[in-house]
Amino acid sequence: MKKQGLKIAVIGGGSSYTPELVEGFIRFHAELPVRELWLVDIDAGLHKLNIVGALAKRMVERSGLPIEVHLTTDRRAAVKNADFVSTQMRVGMLEARGRDETIPLKYGVIGQETTGPGGMLKALRTIPVQLDICRDMEELAPNAWLLNFTNPAGMVTEAIQRHSRVRSIGLCNAPIGLTKWLSTTYGTEPSAIDTEFVGLNHLHWVTRVDVNGDDKLPELLGQTEGFTGKNVPSTGWNPRFIRSLGGLPSYYLKYFYMTDEMLAEQQEAFRRDGNRAAVVKRVEDELFRLYADPDLAEKPKQLEQRGGAFYSEAAVNLMKSLHNGTNDIQTLNVANRGTLDFLPDDAAIEVNCLVTKNGPLPLPLTRVPENVKGLIHAVKTYERLTIQAAVTGDRDIALQAMVHHPLVPNVNVAAPMLDEMLEANRAYLPAFFPQG
Amino acid sequence: MKKQGLKIAVIGGGSSYTPELVEGFIRFHAELPVRELWLVDIDAGLHKLNIVGALAKRMVERSGLPIEVHLTTDRRAAVKNADFVSTQMRVGMLEARGRDETIPLKYGVIGQETTGPGGMLKALRTIPVQLDICRDMEELAPNAWLLNFTNPAGMVTEAIQRHSRVRSIGLCNAPIGLTKWLSTTYGTEPSAIDTEFVGLNHLHWVTRVDVNGDDKLPELLGQTEGFTGKNVPSTGWNPRFIRSLGGLPSYYLKYFYMTDEMLAEQQEAFRRDGNRAAVVKRVEDELFRLYADPDLAEKPKQLEQRGGAFYSEAAVNLMKSLHNGTNDIQTLNVANRGTLDFLPDDAAIEVNCLVTKNGPLPLPLTRVPENVKGLIHAVKTYERLTIQAAVTGDRDIALQAMVHHPLVPNVNVAAPMLDEMLEANRAYLPAFFPQG
Amino acid sequence: MKKQGLKIAVIGGGSSYTPELVEGFIRFHAELPVRELWLVDIDAGLHKLNIVGALAKRMVERSGLPIEVHLTTDRRAAVKNADFVSTQMRVGMLEARGRDETIPLKYGVIGQETTGPGGMLKALRTIPVQLDICRDMEELAPNAWLLNFTNPAGMVTEAIQRHSRVRSIGLCNAPIGLTKWLSTTYGTEPSAIDTEFVGLNHLHWVTRVDVNGDDKLPELLGQTEGFTGKNVPSTGWNPRFIRSLGGLPSYYLKYFYMTDEMLAEQQEAFRRDGNRAAVVKRVEDELFRLYADPDLAEKPKQLEQRGGAFYSEAAVNLMKSLHNGTNDIQTLNVANRGTLDFLPDDAAIEVNCLVTKNGPLPLPLTRVPENVKGLIHAVKTYERLTIQAAVTGDRDIALQAMVHHPLVPNVNVAAPMLDEMLEANRAYLPAFFPQG
Amino acid sequence: MKKQGLKIAVIGGGSSYTPELVEGFIRFHAELPVRELWLVDIDAGLHKLNIVGALAKRMVERSGLPIEVHLTTDRRAAVKNADFVSTQMRVGMLEARGRDETIPLKYGVIGQETTGPGGMLKALRTIPVQLDICRDMEELAPNAWLLNFTNPAGMVTEAIQRHSRVRSIGLCNAPIGLTKWLSTTYGTEPSAIDTEFVGLNHLHWVTRVDVNGDDKLPELLGQTEGFTGKNVPSTGWNPRFIRSLGGLPSYYLKYFYMTDEMLAEQQEAFRRDGNRAAVVKRVEDELFRLYADPDLAEKPKQLEQRGGAFYSEAAVNLMKSLHNGTNDIQTLNVANRGTLDFLPDDAAIEVNCLVTKNGPLPLPLTRVPENVKGLIHAVKTYERLTIQAAVTGDRDIALQAMVHHPLVPNVNVAAPMLDEMLEANRAYLPAFFPQG
Repeated sequence: MKKQGLKIAVIGGGSSYTPELVEGFIRFHAELPVRELWLVDIDAGLHKLNIVGALAKRMVERSGLPIEVHLTTDRRAAVKNADFVSTQMRVGMLEARGRDETIPLKYGVIGQETTGPGGMLKALRTIPVQLDICRDMEELAPNAWLLNFTNPAGMVTEAIQRHSRVRSIGLCNAPIGLTKWLSTTYGTEPSAIDTEFVGLNHLHWVTRVDVNGDDKLPELLGQTEGFTGKNVPSTGWNPRFIRSLGGLPSYYLKYFYMTDEMLAEQQEAFRRDGNRAAVVKRVEDELFRLYADPDLAEKPKQLEQRGGAFYSEAAVNLMKSLHNGTNDIQTLNVANRGTLDFLPDDAAIEVNCLVTKNGPLPLPLTRVPENVKGLIHAVKTYERLTIQAAVTGDRDIALQAMVHHPLVPNVNVAAPMLDEMLEANRAYLPAFFPQG
Repeated sequence: MKKQGLKIAVIGGGSSYTPELVEGFIRFHAELPVRELWLVDIDAGLHKLNIVGALAKRMVERSGLPIEVHLTTDRRAAVKNADFVSTQMRVGMLEARGRDETIPLKYGVIGQETTGPGGMLKALRTIPVQLDICRDMEELAPNAWLLNFTNPAGMVTEAIQRHSRVRSIGLCNAPIGLTKWLSTTYGTEPSAIDTEFVGLNHLHWVTRVDVNGDDKLPELLGQTEGFTGKNVPSTGWNPRFIRSLGGLPSYYLKYFYMTDEMLAEQQEAFRRDGNRAAVVKRVEDELFRLYADPDLAEKPKQLEQRGGAFYSEAAVNLMKSLHNGTNDIQTLNVANRGTLDFLPDDAAIEVNCLVTKNGPLPLPLTRVPENVKGLIHAVKTYERLTIQAAVTGDRDIALQAMVHHPLVPNVNVAAPMLDEMLEANRAYLPAFFPQG
Repeated sequence: MKKQGLKIAVIGGGSSYTPELVEGFIRFHAELPVRELWLVDIDAGLHKLNIVGALAKRMVERSGLPIEVHLTTDRRAAVKNADFVSTQMRVGMLEARGRDETIPLKYGVIGQETTGPGGMLKALRTIPVQLDICRDMEELAPNAWLLNFTNPAGMVTEAIQRHSRVRSIGLCNAPIGLTKWLSTTYGTEPSAIDTEFVGLNHLHWVTRVDVNGDDKLPELLGQTEGFTGKNVPSTGWNPRFIRSLGGLPSYYLKYFYMTDEMLAEQQEAFRRDGNRAAVVKRVEDELFRLYADPDLAEKPKQLEQRGGAFYSEAAVNLMKSLHNGTNDIQTLNVANRGTLDFLPDDAAIEVNCLVTKNGPLPLPLTRVPENVKGLIHAVKTYERLTIQAAVTGDRDIALQAMVHHPLVPNVNVAAPMLDEMLEANRAYLPAFFPQG
Repeated sequence: MKKQGLKIAVIGGGSSYTPELVEGFIRFHAELPVRELWLVDIDAGLHKLNIVGALAKRMVERSGLPIEVHLTTDRRAAVKNADFVSTQMRVGMLEARGRDETIPLKYGVIGQETTGPGGMLKALRTIPVQLDICRDMEELAPNAWLLNFTNPAGMVTEAIQRHSRVRSIGLCNAPIGLTKWLSTTYGTEPSAIDTEFVGLNHLHWVTRVDVNGDDKLPELLGQTEGFTGKNVPSTGWNPRFIRSLGGLPSYYLKYFYMTDEMLAEQQEAFRRDGNRAAVVKRVEDELFRLYADPDLAEKPKQLEQRGGAFYSEAAVNLMKSLHNGTNDIQTLNVANRGTLDFLPDDAAIEVNCLVTKNGPLPLPLTRVPENVKGLIHAVKTYERLTIQAAVTGDRDIALQAMVHHPLVPNVNVAAPMLDEMLEANRAYLPAFFPQG
């Protein structure tokens, strides 16, 4: 039966990213023979699911491929006997993101979706839901692979690996985005680019950039601009600093290395535009207007200009490699298993992996810059405490997590800020607010 | 010959602490039979050496013990065939300390003698001088123990252990100070108190406090005041935070956990009193006036009220235990050797040690709070980079050290502040200013 | 209540060693105020329990101390609220030992009570009984210390630590025996002797022997005779080998290093005297005849001449140190916790420990000879497999354990020998023979 | 220049295996564009070098490819600016092998070319010569890769990695041989076979055998025959043992698991045929007779029937992958770097590696059977001691190595056997016999 094709369940299937994923399944059908595609969402997302689902059906129909598209709010039916489950959720939706980004600003602290206090609250909301999905998978699809795109991807992936038996991998679009950017910059095929990542999700350094076999890292470290994400201000790096850092920093590292400038920029942007979540909401609304066009049967160009470009390409690549055992190298979030010798074996890290039929194997690192070990460990400490807080609903542990985040250096700021943020998320934190 | 008594060399012998040390040698002469005490200082310290040395001689004379006191500026003569060498130096004297404490304030960064940018510059000045002493010891007293009191004691000790073959131990008065404070608080003998330290010098947490076999840690973590040093503001701890932290924090940790409050207090104090170094200078001048009194033949009471109380008691205790192989437990700065499994084997840590005839053995830790691992590693990363910068004079490494110190979160502040501080210390940094 | 004195339960209280233990409790009553001494045995040992128990009562009576002696076969009553539980059992009694020692000889393999196939079968019989005692302790005396003297002490201790929550320590008389022998040899107090042990129970090397501060190891490694046990042949060591080995080997290591000679001696002794168990039985019968004398109210001299001398002294020393938190150094079997970096954290090893109120802390090792790492790991592998076999009753695992013991190099010998030995122990191996 | 093609130096180029290597260079010229092939040998091997070199030239000529073949005894000329250096030496030639195989038999110990006392002596003879080659490479070809085929390949590779700066990899034909055998057995392409190796050279276990994605390991562990080498007796495995071992053992492991049977077989074969070295010599003489035929211009079929089949295929595969950065998986001997967590980082192990442009990366192991850890460590201990003995010429260390080899359990056998073997190799052991 399974020989006739694969079953894929996409949780959060009503996401605006779904058309990209569908496009990937169509394009790579020869290597990844999808037979059933189940798009699942919650009741509150049903309207969007129907719009994006209808577009998905039109895309498949035009392709002429034997893929069945199912739209459902019955998660268990979607998960049952799936070969791959992917999750792309936003617990609390854009409204919650808006709070994550703005409450910290009142306390003079970086307000960001995936790192700092904002990322912490996102983790507290998301991890319990994600573990609930894992319970279903353990029962209904014990051999499936869970591909997690849900941010904060590192913490969510680690929570799954430590608190369930599901086989899971965390994915971010930053690594593939860098490859694309290098490919454009150097006018070469992505396959000619060889990079090595060290660190955690949204906290990595790239310690090797070979293009057609030539070492381009010194050149790239000599630039103060460089690859960046749409969602992070493009302020340039200090040239002396970047030159001697030992690796190309993730653009998220600007929050850590240029905290004052980033905070000023956030506060200015907030005064000017309101919170970024609202901006994103407008973009999304526009996308859904396009998706609803019954004549549209392909991924619209506008989708690529979003911050999350290449997510779905990364996902399809990974599924292809797992399915076929291609043994190619991808940068993924996986359990450490001794790769960074100062972190526990079960800590999620973001590194190059060999993708085998039996899952990804983290590759030994050629070089770990001494400079960055402490920062990696400091953020990992915060992450592990946050996971523990999410699973237990323990406010003391949550406070310790908040205090020990490098972007929150002050205890007397952390305590009231945490209280306000927990309260603002009350509806999504049953472990912290048991009676309701 | 050696059977007839021990030879001790005190480098920085003109320090105001020396009378305390001499009192210790007199009091414990039965267990630590000192025959020769060599007080060494540099030419610039000769005036103070003569005053304090004369007092030492009067103290010994009154004791009737067969201890010879030698005053010299010839370090090699003092070191030759010594059994113990202790160092208590201030390279650049109080003037340099003044700069360490005040330049960072201009950049909105904590200005402190042993941590943050100030501690870093102190390390850069001190480590080369300390290694120079080690070269002498390797040649002239290869079996001697080096007891290092010179701050920043952790970094200086690690530099010695990594860059020389001398047997050395780092010492701080905070652990013995806590024991004394607990002894007073609970009205019991120091011997009835059992504590366990985890961390680094000036960055430790006390994870066990048993008094007469009763666990007093929860009670102490329930207080927001507590043991503190004379040189750190006594602002109280946040009660929720301290209760769930997992260990009693060193009072130096206020700089990390309450950075804003500490900075405000420093800035206020500076406006009010000028820099703390100047205050200390006045206290010292007063002490030397007392010491110069030819009728004084004992340690004056006023000495105990200084920040560095118990330093010499700690030193004499350690020498006694090494000499006699008493196998007692002392809290010392030693090489990690696997004790904290996330740090390199050669990293200096501050933990309980069993003091054997062959040196201190770090004891396995009962518990390492998950909360604090990241902060320990972040500071250790800064420390290792600083040591490397001190040994090489490499400005790029110095910049990486500065940027990665948790109290210096901003690259664009770190770079000019480092330049100004290096320039201000030009006379004491030959590795950075080779021609000068 | 507890303030009025300690409760001790001795499981296997009918052992011929018990008078030594009682003598110890009497001698050290000031430091170890025993109020209740419970001697427990199984029904089959009741006769001996009554004899030795009556002697114990006479000894206590003569001492005039307020110690109550209880004799019982009700283990749960004895364990309840105990402060210390000690075990000295022989599951299957001397008859089983006889089989352990003789069956291997038929296959041309060393037949020994605690190592090789004999030791393995002893472990398989003993571990389930020992874990049963632990279940009682977890329920009835959760804060008690379990002192395990039961051989093979290393494996039994590791089984307890991995499969129960009881606080336990394994004890052997070899370390104290060596100290006594050195004390006699060098005519000095035991307190003047400082040794360091590396390895496992009955598989250790002594890498430091300081007597009054002088290094005697080279001298001792220059001798081919030396300290030995009553139960191991006294064949001398090869002088070139012993000199360069890096540590004084346990006399049990003759089985590994001089396998042929030991086997020949065993076979000769068996032809001459029958099995050693029978010899021991005669000695024991003689001891019990003495014990039964109603005029005897002290430990008879003859007891000291047994192989197990000093067991009880070791036990009382350990209880004293735990009770008083003396922080002295004893050689014990404890969890590895990183001490030998090539073994798992939960592997039992035999090393110097600091005995604190909270239990023993293994001390960092000064030196681990490269020569012996492989042999330690080979035996530890066998031990871990044996523990797993004992807990599961899995014959396949038992076969792997047997095959991988360094004294059993041949698979086709191991398989039938294992079958015969399991069958011969059927009555004591319910996990292997579930129907009884 | 290098762009025009690669320079390869084959040390031991007069070997009978060389035609296979030449065939590989011809077949894969497109991926591995060899321009210069230097065959080097010592004066004593000049006759064979000329015969095999002439054949190599005829083979190249017939291929029409632009490969220059150089024959020389000037090793430095051959190594200079090479891209790859391969070594396939037999220090002492077949006569020495004959002694390695026969002297141990007199002492009742396994006599084998690469393991046991024979392998040890081969290592003592070979390592100094190999390190001499490395000195040349450090000077004349610092970026070249050294591919080491010289047995005992594990020890030789580890010696190179610990005692030189040359980039080197150890190669054995057993892994590729297993793949070929599985390919024949299951009638599938080698590319459809996925295996995982754990262990050391000639001491590995295969813990995964997937054929076309199906797990064939249970089936293979259910057989008592299986893949074997031409040079190891084909005695079957004990079925209970092999089934529960956890991995398919290398056929060399029969020496460890069935020592008695292997020894009996060796002694019988020796009585019947004389030593195996003499047999091999006859085969080689026959091959060289064939090679000398001026009409032969291809690899003769008879070569494949030798024990060392596939050596050259393995070599060419590896060079191709290094040259092109193909990122494929090969089983190689490389530095451990944490892969087996109980061995030092610099220990050579034989595991699956990803072959990148920058060299092989050992892949994390899916599973390490508990059963075999001790044996791996025991042999590695012997190996490390042997390397140390080879480098120092220290007889004491050599004795410790010999005693701690699991096939040599008896000290009093090891000592005279070592003496006799060292003496018999006097001409090849200048470090042990400095004047001679």
